[in-house]
Amino acid sequence: MAKTRIGILGYGNLGRGVELSCRQNDDMELAAVFTRRDPSSVRPLTEGVAVHSADDLAAHAGDIDVLVLCGGSASDLPEQTPACASLFNVVDSFDTHAKIPEHFANVDAAAREGGKVAVISAGWDPGMFSLARLYATSILPDGADYTFWGRGVSQGHSDAIRRVEGVADARQYTVPVPAALEAVRAGETPELTTRQKHTRECYVVAKEGADRAAIERAIVEMPNYFADYDTTVTFVTQEELDRDHAGIPHGGSVIRSGKTGRDGENRHVVEFSLTLDSNPEFTGSVLVACARAAHRLALEGQTGCKTMFDIAPAYLSSMSGEELRASML
Amino acid sequence: MAKTRIGILGYGNLGRGVELSCRQNDDMELAAVFTRRDPSSVRPLTEGVAVHSADDLAAHAGDIDVLVLCGGSASDLPEQTPACASLFNVVDSFDTHAKIPEHFANVDAAAREGGKVAVISAGWDPGMFSLARLYATSILPDGADYTFWGRGVSQGHSDAIRRVEGVADARQYTVPVPAALEAVRAGETPELTTRQKHTRECYVVAKEGADRAAIERAIVEMPNYFADYDTTVTFVTQEELDRDHAGIPHGGSVIRSGKTGRDGENRHVVEFSLTLDSNPEFTGSVLVACARAAHRLALEGQTGCKTMFDIAPAYLSSMSGEELRASML
Repeated sequence: MAKTRIGILGYGNLGRGVELSCRQNDDMELAAVFTRRDPSSVRPLTEGVAVHSADDLAAHAGDIDVLVLCGGSASDLPEQTPACASLFNVVDSFDTHAKIPEHFANVDAAAREGGKVAVISAGWDPGMFSLARLYATSILPDGADYTFWGRGVSQGHSDAIRRVEGVADARQYTVPVPAALEAVRAGETPELTTRQKHTRECYVVAKEGADRAAIERAIVEMPNYFADYDTTVTFVTQEELDRDHAGIPHGGSVIRSGKTGRDGENRHVVEFSLTLDSNPEFTGSVLVACARAAHRLALEGQTGCKTMFDIAPAYLSSMSGEELRASML
Repeated sequence: MAKTRIGILGYGNLGRGVELSCRQNDDMELAAVFTRRDPSSVRPLTEGVAVHSADDLAAHAGDIDVLVLCGGSASDLPEQTPACASLFNVVDSFDTHAKIPEHFANVDAAAREGGKVAVISAGWDPGMFSLARLYATSILPDGADYTFWGRGVSQGHSDAIRRVEGVADARQYTVPVPAALEAVRAGETPELTTRQKHTRECYVVAKEGADRAAIERAIVEMPNYFADYDTTVTFVTQEELDRDHAGIPHGGSVIRSGKTGRDGENRHVVEFSLTLDSNPEFTGSVLVACARAAHRLALEGQTGCKTMFDIAPAYLSSMSGEELRASML
């Protein structure tokens, strides 16, 4: 069977994660990288992969089965995904939870117009964590669920800080509040505000002469990203950031406690947890599995925008239904 | 919207679990219980639910949207599910992993003949644990996964023991080997045989005058169920069994360790775990979510046998796509 030809738009950490995942999957082939930088300045890890300007995307529509969009959610994806979805089957990792319905509608219209399949908000949250919430809530409707992130670096939040005026570079760590995590794991169902569950630690390199107070204010007051959390901003030099905050680990848990029985006498705790050395490489691996699904759905004649909620799990696997039933069920 | 009318075939622990789950889901309605016992001897917990003889199933095909089969995998379901799948949309929890391909083929033929949807092998293993394996393996192809069960009572294995000649009653506990579980959680990827991962503890009530040595031999040598494990058989009185082994807890973990990166330098651990006070009530809750999906798939005109691998997660939820994207993604 022919390999799925993958295009990557945006060759940063996530784009490299997608590339590395393609190398692990025999049915996937990285066909091209598209960049807004000078293409001659971008060198993929994989020999022989073409690098094109993002301006030339349309000219390569016939060479790519699925375009994986690796930009940021703050300003790239809201424009890029709808723009690309009428030309390509696409996958993105749009992670601004509050704006997903709007993004879905925009991408759905574009994908239907072009007769393409788009998968949005893939990754681990949104993505695998969303699935854990959906499955556990569908099974245990009488219960409460909790999502804890970290301790780890959030790409989306680091990206958002980097877009603040005067910021040269940044790393943001999401940290669960230990007492909250312990209570939920023990089967308690406390009412927890956003603020009671996590803190956010920001390590920021300011540009020379930048107004640090203004930067700090812009970060801690940023809606959706930081305003609802206890956020600390620590200014560091680029050297300190590179030395002490080079890794991109992450992780977390989705935990649902639910009751069943005649009088709710039986309690069940469902937990899905991740411990990731490299957030972008794991996220890239989810995107590639979703690209496989998008290609299959497109070959079946489906069109429009999907999330992982709408994709039968078997579509993510390179195995046939027979192989899956024999080996994994 | 009209409720999904559920029928239950077999009113034991699992059947009651399905009934209790129907009571928690506003879009589900328990329409009838079918039993091989004298119907007048069966009293559902839910007021006004009809109890019919299993012999009269065909006469009630028009009253039921989905029939949930709550028999055992050893001898009930291999016959019942194919027999029912041409008359009803059905869901079962067939859990003899080695025989799933054969069961799938039999049920698929019957369901297609009748134009019905059948969902087999639903529950938590097979079921939710299978999904955890599929998702994690699709995302991290370079890795190893491990499934640990327990400590908990296995319904299927207890049922298998009860079918041994001379056995009056039994409870089987599946117990993970602690050292194996610890190594895997720490990110190691040891090669573990079936025997190195779990032990099986059987508490058995023998019928008066039964040959205990023959019972023990029949259990420990039983293929698929016990032959590949270190199995201990302890004979107890019915009174002891009722006093010390009345609960039906279970649980376990699916853990996959995988590597990504240029040289596999980044490790990721994905874990899905369950801690269940009542195995049949949790399993029943999964079956009801799958019944919702089966009904929807049938209304869309789909036919044939499915597993949870083939069902887009959104079908399991009572929420609309819009609600799911806004609240869970």
